[in-house]
Amino acid sequence: MESITIKDVAKICGVSVSTVSRAINNNPGINEETKNMIMQVIKKYDYIPNNSARNLKRSETNNIAILIKGLNNPFFSPMIAEFEKEIKKKKYTFILQRVDENQDEIEVAIELEKEKRLKGIVFLGGYFSHSREKLEKLTVPFVLSTVGMSEMIEGVKYSSVAVDDKKESYKIVDYLCKLGHKKIAIISATDDDESIGKLRFEGYMRALCDNNIEFNPDLVYYLQSGNDRYSMRSGYIAGKKIVKEKADCTAIFAITDIIAMGALRAIYEEGYKVPEDYSIAGYDGLELSRYYIPSLTTIRQPVEKIAVETLKVLFDMINEKTDSVHKVFDGELIIGESVKNI
Amino acid sequence: MESITIKDVAKICGVSVSTVSRAINNNPGINEETKNMIMQVIKKYDYIPNNSARNLKRSETNNIAILIKGLNNPFFSPMIAEFEKEIKKKKYTFILQRVDENQDEIEVAIELEKEKRLKGIVFLGGYFSHSREKLEKLTVPFVLSTVGMSEMIEGVKYSSVAVDDKKESYKIVDYLCKLGHKKIAIISATDDDESIGKLRFEGYMRALCDNNIEFNPDLVYYLQSGNDRYSMRSGYIAGKKIVKEKADCTAIFAITDIIAMGALRAIYEEGYKVPEDYSIAGYDGLELSRYYIPSLTTIRQPVEKIAVETLKVLFDMINEKTDSVHKVFDGELIIGESVKNI
Repeated sequence: MESITIKDVAKICGVSVSTVSRAINNNPGINEETKNMIMQVIKKYDYIPNNSARNLKRSETNNIAILIKGLNNPFFSPMIAEFEKEIKKKKYTFILQRVDENQDEIEVAIELEKEKRLKGIVFLGGYFSHSREKLEKLTVPFVLSTVGMSEMIEGVKYSSVAVDDKKESYKIVDYLCKLGHKKIAIISATDDDESIGKLRFEGYMRALCDNNIEFNPDLVYYLQSGNDRYSMRSGYIAGKKIVKEKADCTAIFAITDIIAMGALRAIYEEGYKVPEDYSIAGYDGLELSRYYIPSLTTIRQPVEKIAVETLKVLFDMINEKTDSVHKVFDGELIIGESVKNI
Repeated sequence: MESITIKDVAKICGVSVSTVSRAINNNPGINEETKNMIMQVIKKYDYIPNNSARNLKRSETNNIAILIKGLNNPFFSPMIAEFEKEIKKKKYTFILQRVDENQDEIEVAIELEKEKRLKGIVFLGGYFSHSREKLEKLTVPFVLSTVGMSEMIEGVKYSSVAVDDKKESYKIVDYLCKLGHKKIAIISATDDDESIGKLRFEGYMRALCDNNIEFNPDLVYYLQSGNDRYSMRSGYIAGKKIVKEKADCTAIFAITDIIAMGALRAIYEEGYKVPEDYSIAGYDGLELSRYYIPSLTTIRQPVEKIAVETLKVLFDMINEKTDSVHKVFDGELIIGESVKNI
């Protein structure tokens, strides 16, 4: 039997096609009695099924989910804009899902996969340390984008696109050392922090070591824990502490630009100058860091390129053109006004 | 006839349930032949329809779309975070859709409604001037959030949540006047700009008038047009122009904080000081504007409150608890370091 169409249903019920559509989609603004009648006709003539099968085919499967740790972070704004553009270009729908700092992104993704017909997932931000067993629960392709990761996960199909956080952090701290700084404080995440903080801290340690500077634990300033750890406020609090404790340093490496700017503001409020009294280096290369006064010396991550490549890789995986790719971009040392030589 | 289940399909095909699921969802990693066999069984036993009907009921209708003009603008970051949180709490899915400056948001929304089963829409940012006829094409409830609007649209069910841009802009320009400034430049959007720029410009004009200051068209500095109009770069270009043309002003009102910071940076680069040489006032009250050096005198929009209220209103409309609500929040004058009296 040929299935009936929405027009047939409308005709049988004596209502308009859009009213039938409203009833099906459970939209407001439709009389309850009319709706019941429509739903009965639909049931009787077995209409819904075919309609939803059509819709299923048409669009409901075209979802790409972006799971993001740190939605409030301006670092992600240009990336989200780029993702949205590219996803739309491919006629997919962009589903945005925030993941809290203390949430397990894989659990969130598994939940989302159950609810939505996803074609692919991008994990944005945070630090990734999950077992193979857990990752195998994800049935769609996924790409880790600007996600910290210490080592590859064997036997799981996934891709990643990022800079090498350890290497880039090494680069900027090494630059501070080469300018003559020997007392370099770091504003970093706590040890147990599962995030890029860990990798950037490792780069700092390695750069000190290679420049024959002894590591001084008194110069490590930890960010407060919590969801707004990577915020200006958090950097501001650390900056205040550095000044008030009269930390024995000539330079400060803040593991993100946002934190660097918060610290800068604190130092300014305490009556000190950057870079005259303290040199400050950041990390990320936000657009904003060029317009701050003073502009920041930082590592610029090529965020637009990373975003475009992330989706290219994801679509290649969806279309089975590739199994997995691990792409590492170079960061760029940006010389701003916030660092001087000694 | 009782419909068969996914388990029955799997049994008939001699494959696992998850393989059937993969075939239905068109996921990769399934043999083409197996897939064809499954799809044939599905067709033969009329399976898909019932499954999709179930899914339809379960989750596919629970979409809230946020259409945003100016995704890159940090003004929206805390709002997006708030939306995401609230939408998730209600067990809905957050669909994010960017709208370009020159795109018609209603057309975009109509398209999206066709593709997705939306329950509601939030329009974020931009300026709203659409005919009743066009708005009536939207069949789901919608709320305009922080959208500029000169007048109500009669006969259409919709809600809005925002501050009164004209009134708040008046407030800050009036504040500059009361401090003794008589020559106040404005960095604004062009006349034909369909955005909040128009309303904030009107507030500026009215404040000058009420303070008996003659309007001087030479002190109007227009932002370049284009998608990144409301950017730091755009404010930076205007700021350079103001200094280089030796504009006859003691104060500058920039219609957003981002623009104010761009202008500030330009003035700094040209060797002038804020507020000693120029007072600068912004608008929005970004978190960032408190950490900038100097911190900005600005109007703070209660963005988190606006976001929460926007969704409250939207869900009330979805649940038919209200037809439409127009809620206006007050902005708050924030006294920063970027303005001095004269």
